[in-house]
Amino acid sequence: MERPLILISNDDGVHARGLHHLIDIARNIGDVIAVAPDAPRSGQSAALTVNAPLRIVPHSETDGAKVFSVTGTPVDCVKLALHAITGRRPDLMLSGINHGSNAAVNNLYSGTMGAAMEACLAGIPSIGFSLLDHSPDADFDPLTPFIDSITRRVLEKGLPEGICLNVNFPKNCTPLGVKVLRAAEGHWTEEYADYTDPHGKPFYWLTGRFHNEEPDCPETDEYWLARQYGSIVPIRPGQTALDMIPAIDKIFC
Amino acid sequence: MERPLILISNDDGVHARGLHHLIDIARNIGDVIAVAPDAPRSGQSAALTVNAPLRIVPHSETDGAKVFSVTGTPVDCVKLALHAITGRRPDLMLSGINHGSNAAVNNLYSGTMGAAMEACLAGIPSIGFSLLDHSPDADFDPLTPFIDSITRRVLEKGLPEGICLNVNFPKNCTPLGVKVLRAAEGHWTEEYADYTDPHGKPFYWLTGRFHNEEPDCPETDEYWLARQYGSIVPIRPGQTALDMIPAIDKIFC
Repeated sequence: MERPLILISNDDGVHARGLHHLIDIARNIGDVIAVAPDAPRSGQSAALTVNAPLRIVPHSETDGAKVFSVTGTPVDCVKLALHAITGRRPDLMLSGINHGSNAAVNNLYSGTMGAAMEACLAGIPSIGFSLLDHSPDADFDPLTPFIDSITRRVLEKGLPEGICLNVNFPKNCTPLGVKVLRAAEGHWTEEYADYTDPHGKPFYWLTGRFHNEEPDCPETDEYWLARQYGSIVPIRPGQTALDMIPAIDKIFC
Repeated sequence: MERPLILISNDDGVHARGLHHLIDIARNIGDVIAVAPDAPRSGQSAALTVNAPLRIVPHSETDGAKVFSVTGTPVDCVKLALHAITGRRPDLMLSGINHGSNAAVNNLYSGTMGAAMEACLAGIPSIGFSLLDHSPDADFDPLTPFIDSITRRVLEKGLPEGICLNVNFPKNCTPLGVKVLRAAEGHWTEEYADYTDPHGKPFYWLTGRFHNEEPDCPETDEYWLARQYGSIVPIRPGQTALDMIPAIDKIFC
């Protein structure tokens, strides 16, 4: 039987350790083609490059894994991989391992999840993996058996149409398990650091803290991540709020 | 009674005609503060600027409307407006008018909708407006009464928590009406033009055509946009597929 083809991308760029950790897990499971941004692209969401040319640059080839970089966003990487690199349709798409949390509302801003959602919209089962540790030297080793198991399970059973997975892991520990959950409600506060430049003009730099609005709710990703569990949140890239159509209709009639 | 404060942004940038058309409609309804990217940022989705400083530049001030530009994405504009510009909490946020369609799957990639979703997540009722005409000289005049009416209605009645609106209008006509709908299922095909540079190396440029997978379905935005109606689609920025949690749970247990 043909080995499954696994497409991998991320948003921390082709040099990130999390990407290569994920590649190493995946090439035990199937043939890997990784197509990642040429530089870090955190916070790129589902952005795509509209008004500029894109290049594909071969990066490396090791046993069972070919790696390329693209001069664009995570979504560009997935689109160009399918257009010009993979040849056949991937059986699975993995994104990450992200250096930093994509739990709760961060899903929306995440380039890691942008790439996973793009694959999902192309009909390929996809999973974004993130570790709650921004450090370039974050320790991904404890995640290996969990990522291996989740990946094999999704390859075997597939995912519902139009649904991908956002998987996050706690830092500095071996997870006690993984749970299927919803994203916690919450928002960022104190979002900017304010500066004055040498000419007396103000500028701003994104920072902030996440405020969890429901810290005691055991249905949420943040609750279990704080208790050393991994979280699996099903994500629907299609954003129509079907259940709200009657209520909105009432506003306008 | 205090006039409502209306925050406006877009993704085509501070010089786009669609932005100023929207400002002109809104300043008949309330006090307007517009904060738009300093240059076109189409396709920026909910991207935010993580690793660079941001500046706010005063652009213009006319009767009832102050306009600023920001050296970042549409989401940066909304976040910085709330952090450093508006002073008080806006009663409403409007995005656009976008030069080009944000119907169907385009919602996900749209910077116009990225800005609207950001305001929604901040608890501000928000609406993205788009015209199915990419031209810089697109004729926005026929939309004026519709945008005025939709805006006043949302100001009066509010929107359900966590829901914003994606409103699209057909080009080159006076809309026959507006309908509340869901996004059509579909995907982009032939997404890249392939080139060879003067040194013999390939490069790629995003293009493509939208393929509507359900052209005969009258529940969808594309169906009615093709029949000269405006579409109102309720959008939920929170992407957890709550209804899928049991199905995903079954895959992993």
